[in-house]
Amino acid sequence: MNQANNPANHPRAEFVPTERVRVKRYPARAKYDRATAEAILDDAMVCHVGFVDDGQPYVIPTMYVRDGARLLIHGSPLSRMLTGAADGIPLCVTVTLLDGVVLARSAFHHSMNYRSVVVVGHAREVVEPAAKLAAMRALVDRLMPGRWDDVRQPTPGEIAGTRVLEIPLVEASAKVRAGGPVDLAEDEALPVWAGFVPLTLGPGAPIPDAKLAPGIDLPDYVRRWRRAGTD
Amino acid sequence: MNQANNPANHPRAEFVPTERVRVKRYPARAKYDRATAEAILDDAMVCHVGFVDDGQPYVIPTMYVRDGARLLIHGSPLSRMLTGAADGIPLCVTVTLLDGVVLARSAFHHSMNYRSVVVVGHAREVVEPAAKLAAMRALVDRLMPGRWDDVRQPTPGEIAGTRVLEIPLVEASAKVRAGGPVDLAEDEALPVWAGFVPLTLGPGAPIPDAKLAPGIDLPDYVRRWRRAGTD
Repeated sequence: MNQANNPANHPRAEFVPTERVRVKRYPARAKYDRATAEAILDDAMVCHVGFVDDGQPYVIPTMYVRDGARLLIHGSPLSRMLTGAADGIPLCVTVTLLDGVVLARSAFHHSMNYRSVVVVGHAREVVEPAAKLAAMRALVDRLMPGRWDDVRQPTPGEIAGTRVLEIPLVEASAKVRAGGPVDLAEDEALPVWAGFVPLTLGPGAPIPDAKLAPGIDLPDYVRRWRRAGTD
Repeated sequence: MNQANNPANHPRAEFVPTERVRVKRYPARAKYDRATAEAILDDAMVCHVGFVDDGQPYVIPTMYVRDGARLLIHGSPLSRMLTGAADGIPLCVTVTLLDGVVLARSAFHHSMNYRSVVVVGHAREVVEPAAKLAAMRALVDRLMPGRWDDVRQPTPGEIAGTRVLEIPLVEASAKVRAGGPVDLAEDEALPVWAGFVPLTLGPGAPIPDAKLAPGIDLPDYVRRWRRAGTD
């Protein structure tokens, strides 16, 4: 695709809520602005990629990074998912953050707090060497900011052994539920505790490799690391 | 389906690794025993349901509970996903827990620790009243054990306004990566910190509802709550 004509290079502030991504259930929770979706995509670390093979859907978890108006994923050239995706089959990429458990006064109104993004579209393989290496760097630095410059760079064989795909962040929607329960007015006086319990994915203490050479300190960027959005 | 002939009622200790669920990438990480899959399914709280509509895959997050050798999901009778699923379209249900970030000495060997389960199959709607109510109870008590008995029970209208589906846990596989990096032998002496940073989804302090009636204490089962598997 001509880069000047690539819609990913001209992102709109609002997604177009096509029938494929429009939120039907609880439409008040829908967000079609790019900023909301980007914040979710920059906070989560795993996406679920849906594809179809012989009529059967498959949903595979994988890491990703948002780079401007596209998502980058990577893996082995032998991956069934990536091979199909590189061939341009239709994809759905969904990212979900679980933010809490919502306890209502009635069983029916129990819920979860969450932030999710659904992206549909086709992938394109990133093959141009500089763009591919930049994508590999973005993926490692998404895992741990600052890591790339600290480690052995990939060999030509390792680069060849990595397939990188980009998925335009164009046809997408976000959905957000936050806060406490929404009970029926007539239930509000029930003598039942109601509210929510927040959930956060947070880091524990770093565990050094058993074969770590002596005298290597934990880098500051690892010690200070918090996932994006969890300050 | 005759319950005596339902394979979900006669679970095997090992799944059958059909071509649809066999782990192709990193097969050493594959687990086909039911106990491993059940532990993952009982720890996570969100699944991603994949289905196909007019050739396009969709991946939708939703809560679930494992009940013996089946998964239960629920939602509105108007949900596109549940309507299709109740009609018996092929599904893929994937559950993923992100357990850590793996920092290798080379960019190429960076990874994530995770536990995931992929289930393929068809759903069946649970319509028999007692079974449906039991499923609704299981879903609420999965969110917060002990909650069902503390809250207002569903009205006939709320039960009618809930669709419950079961997906047999028969054709499935699990995949687990744990521990530190696997570097090339020749990289092990590099002067780079290597290891992993664990990640855990954990609860924060419960937030009471703004309209909570005075004098209602936080229940012990909420105060003590930890997600399964995170002790």
